[in-house]
Amino acid sequence: MQSMLTPITAALIAVITAAPAVAQSVEERLKRGDAVIRDLNRGQPQPALERMRQEFPFLAEATEAYALGDVWARPGLDGRTRQLAAVAAFAATGQLPFMKVHAGYALNIGVSEEELKEVIYMITVPAGISRAIAASQVLSELFAERRDERRPR
Amino acid sequence: MQSMLTPITAALIAVITAAPAVAQSVEERLKRGDAVIRDLNRGQPQPALERMRQEFPFLAEATEAYALGDVWARPGLDGRTRQLAAVAAFAATGQLPFMKVHAGYALNIGVSEEELKEVIYMITVPAGISRAIAASQVLSELFAERRDERRPR
Amino acid sequence: MQSMLTPITAALIAVITAAPAVAQSVEERLKRGDAVIRDLNRGQPQPALERMRQEFPFLAEATEAYALGDVWARPGLDGRTRQLAAVAAFAATGQLPFMKVHAGYALNIGVSEEELKEVIYMITVPAGISRAIAASQVLSELFAERRDERRPR
Amino acid sequence: MQSMLTPITAALIAVITAAPAVAQSVEERLKRGDAVIRDLNRGQPQPALERMRQEFPFLAEATEAYALGDVWARPGLDGRTRQLAAVAAFAATGQLPFMKVHAGYALNIGVSEEELKEVIYMITVPAGISRAIAASQVLSELFAERRDERRPR
Amino acid sequence: MQSMLTPITAALIAVITAAPAVAQSVEERLKRGDAVIRDLNRGQPQPALERMRQEFPFLAEATEAYALGDVWARPGLDGRTRQLAAVAAFAATGQLPFMKVHAGYALNIGVSEEELKEVIYMITVPAGISRAIAASQVLSELFAERRDERRPR
Amino acid sequence: MQSMLTPITAALIAVITAAPAVAQSVEERLKRGDAVIRDLNRGQPQPALERMRQEFPFLAEATEAYALGDVWARPGLDGRTRQLAAVAAFAATGQLPFMKVHAGYALNIGVSEEELKEVIYMITVPAGISRAIAASQVLSELFAERRDERRPR
Repeated sequence: MQSMLTPITAALIAVITAAPAVAQSVEERLKRGDAVIRDLNRGQPQPALERMRQEFPFLAEATEAYALGDVWARPGLDGRTRQLAAVAAFAATGQLPFMKVHAGYALNIGVSEEELKEVIYMITVPAGISRAIAASQVLSELFAERRDERRPR
Repeated sequence: MQSMLTPITAALIAVITAAPAVAQSVEERLKRGDAVIRDLNRGQPQPALERMRQEFPFLAEATEAYALGDVWARPGLDGRTRQLAAVAAFAATGQLPFMKVHAGYALNIGVSEEELKEVIYMITVPAGISRAIAASQVLSELFAERRDERRPR
Repeated sequence: MQSMLTPITAALIAVITAAPAVAQSVEERLKRGDAVIRDLNRGQPQPALERMRQEFPFLAEATEAYALGDVWARPGLDGRTRQLAAVAAFAATGQLPFMKVHAGYALNIGVSEEELKEVIYMITVPAGISRAIAASQVLSELFAERRDERRPR
Repeated sequence: MQSMLTPITAALIAVITAAPAVAQSVEERLKRGDAVIRDLNRGQPQPALERMRQEFPFLAEATEAYALGDVWARPGLDGRTRQLAAVAAFAATGQLPFMKVHAGYALNIGVSEEELKEVIYMITVPAGISRAIAASQVLSELFAERRDERRPR
Repeated sequence: MQSMLTPITAALIAVITAAPAVAQSVEERLKRGDAVIRDLNRGQPQPALERMRQEFPFLAEATEAYALGDVWARPGLDGRTRQLAAVAAFAATGQLPFMKVHAGYALNIGVSEEELKEVIYMITVPAGISRAIAASQVLSELFAERRDERRPR
Repeated sequence: MQSMLTPITAALIAVITAAPAVAQSVEERLKRGDAVIRDLNRGQPQPALERMRQEFPFLAEATEAYALGDVWARPGLDGRTRQLAAVAAFAATGQLPFMKVHAGYALNIGVSEEELKEVIYMITVPAGISRAIAASQVLSELFAERRDERRPR
């Protein structure tokens, strides 16, 4: 099972997670969340998360400590599958800006464009052809942005 | 990449799919859908699908020829990932009877209970803790039914 | 264009509607709503509406005066089309008990079972095959109940 | 319990509401709705409502007479709580332009930015962290617009 | 009952549909879908569908062969009613870009602006006044675009 | 402003919250969540939460440490308003079993039946009359259960 995390990050999280539960402070959960986001986001912090810190500090904490540090760092599901399942959930509920972010993370950790397309094809069944079309348009934007990045200047 | 399909089914579908597009008749798509459903459902037809045939024949055809024969038979995504992504989409949109059916298919093709639980944990982020709790209750029912089946009488 | 209303009811509403706007009291809107519901419901009051009157009097009033008396009594759309569009909206949003009630009204004013099925087939496109399957199962219940009613005893 | 309405508006509505039900004409309900919107919107009419009047007159009437004149004018819930509950409902269902309008009304009648933030934090539980993040971004826009308004020129 | 299709298209589809099921190849379904879209779209192909063909070929096929060729070509519902029911479903689920496209098709096949407005008024009941307001704003855009097209230059 | 918490619980939470963030271990968050649930639930643990502990331990932890211990224990919103906003969000999204639980908590901390009804009336605007009717039926069940409890035997 391919890990979502680089070996160093994985080792870091293993150490943190091995600590007794009583020692899982908010600080440690935030650190783990930060490691997860950097692993998903090519070593960078997540801009929307950074913007939230000033006006919505609790929501930034919930995102980093809970969503990333608690949920996304769990070892029981490989990162590729988690990203594809998240893309499915965001597409099916029409939350397309989040789908785009998570599809980008998926590409970053080695999911192929073809696999993302297959998840969108599948979405026609639980959520309708229209939801899949809308998602496909956002994926096309993402794919074009990535091609632009790779283009020599 | 683990196939969703048994080797014989996979071979059968390969033959059908290799046929020129013009030859992909409704009949062939229905056959492929039937092969998919039997592979997911331990060799059995799907009872709800069978009940639809009399009063909603077109919807039964759409399910079998399109959803199963066209979408679910596609080779670009392994069956385990497709089932986990489908479970995520059904849970996030609150379609729990369908989530249960597809979680059952997931177990049938080798997904573990732990992986299904991880998808439900992930669902707290795009769809809320309450949607995840509701999904967990339906998964618990499924797991209990499977334990009952395995119990010697 | 077939009217949703019997000629007598239609005449009654025409008289009420012709009254100056200032005279459109809640009482008159309630009377119009009562006429609409009896027209849709084979001359009977709607049981769920009656039960709401005691504990949720304002919601019963909103249903009767606004939903039925204002919206459903509007002359610009024939009753059959309004019922089929309402069935589509309830099915697409997963509000199946309401879909069943409105599909029953549709049958009462002359919509055929076949037309209801076609709306459900269409729902696969905006809302998914699963939403359509769930709706088809509720329609099958309704059709069976109607056959039971017609059966000689 | 702080009223949503200024004393004069409240007195006006009390007089209208005390009239016998039979006298609650559409005209009176529209007047009451107009009083409510001006109270929520710093004495101004609501621009989107005004634009609707020409092409969608019935919908403008439903908004003004029913939503504002009937529902929002009810005395059983203080205005601050109704606005916060409305913000929760709009955020949870992803209707963010309406959430922004109603959050603005909330600020206008004395709800604090902090209380609005707390409702958004709460939304993570029924609707997901992503829905709350999307809502927080729209609230940040609103807060910035209000700061701009207060800035001396 | 007014057909959604021009007589020539209807005749063409009748011939195709009369062919034995086994002969309903993907190619034939695509042709039928193409005939449907041209009938709805004033003889033109659908631009979004064309853009999908390159990156999401299966989704383009699903749209053309399944949604248009299988569902929308069914003879059991007249085209005007199908369009109004589709508009209701897209409006109720907040899929407004698709609502706009299908409301445009509705106008193209003879549905009046008034009938579209009535469907939106009805949507207040299953989906809320806010969903109807949002839909009304998109319909107003569409109506304005059509007026611009008709204006002499 | 009435607190959601009894004085003793509030004091307990104040002590825990005053501790430096680094000391906010999972254990402390769970204790705070347990205090919140007992305050909402008449001193009792929440049965559904208890059942989750065995098969979905992480989801039980997320519910207790995050939803209850982090979100629901926040001091910036009084408990009555948070419950009414939560009831609005659950009703608007059709999550009625959760709406019932949270409406019960609302009654436990002093919200009146009338206030709950007003929130449901309001829900007609963002979510439709049908969603409000469905919610009203569940509230009627809850009110009846409470009357049964108070009845001498």
